Formats: sequence, C-alpha cells, structure tokens
Amino acid sequence: MRWKAKIEVTLKKEVLDPQGAAVEGALQVLNYRNVRQVRVGKYMELLLEAPAREEAARQVEEMCRRLLTNPVIEDFSYTLLGETP
Amino acid sequence: MRWKAKIEVTLKKEVLDPQGAAVEGALQVLNYRNVRQVRVGKYMELLLEAPAREEAARQVEEMCRRLLTNPVIEDFSYTLLGETP
Repeated sequence: MRWKAKIEVTLKKEVLDPQGAAVEGALQVLNYRNVRQVRVGKYMELLLEAPAREEAARQVEEMCRRLLTNPVIEDFSYTLLGETP
Repeated sequence: MRWKAKIEVTLKKEVLDPQGAAVEGALQVLNYRNVRQVRVGKYMELLLEAPAREEAARQVEEMCRRLLTNPVIEDFSYTLLGETP
C-alpha cells in the first residue's frame, strides 16, 4: 500500500529562530501588529510503499532521525495518509 | 481571542524541486528504496490576536499572499487552532 507522509520539522522551543524573528519584524512593518511568536521550520512530503501503517510510521520516524531532521535542535511531527492506487 | 496558525508552504506541482530531489537521492543511498516524490517546503507557526476565526483566517491568507509565500511558484495551506489564554 502507498502512504503519503506529511512531515513538519520545527526548531525546539529553546533554540533561537532568527528567520522567524525576521519574518515577525517584516509582518510588524506591514502593520500586522497582532502577530507574535513566528517560528519558521521545514515541511516535507513523500510517498512511501509499505504493507501497513505501523511499518510506514516506523520508517518515517527512522528517516526523520537519520536524515531529515537534526534531533539536537529540531522536533518533528508527521501525518500518514493512505493512498488509493 | 488568540489563534495559532500552522502554515504549510509547498512548491507548486509543476515547479522543479531540486532540494526534494537531493533528499530523495540521499534516502535511496540510505536504502529507503520504497520512497518517492519527496518535496521540500516551508512550515511556519505564529500566534495571532483576532476576535473571530473568520478574521484570523482572512489575515493569515493575506499575510501568506503578501509576504510569507511567493504565489507564482508556491501554494499554501493552513490550520487555525483557537488557544485558551
């Protein structure tokens, strides 16, 4: 079965996010004064062949730890959608 | 009321994604041969003060069009979560 994984990678809360701060500053300049705590991360999508959801989840978590994220400074979360062929 | 916006920015389907291709290649090297169509995008979170969901949604869409995305090559989607103060 084919799965679509949607992965969100964010900096851990205690890690400074200069890119987020820059975006927040730009939004203030554009007069969005009601916006705060902008954080910028990465988003990834991929298709994965796996017989069952558990196996797909195991592989996505492994890929995140080994390659897609830096576990020292980043967290990740993901959703798996089963795809009809 | 305070809202948390989670924004996913992806390259449009017809736009080449060399970063996604590089990640896919690296996953193949790591023996994840069942993975395809890796696409890399951006993920953003922010907090927003707005009296109602409709107003929060309107502002998030406007920010995305004006600053957070490049509408020529990128699509976006978002979710809004109401936060208890």
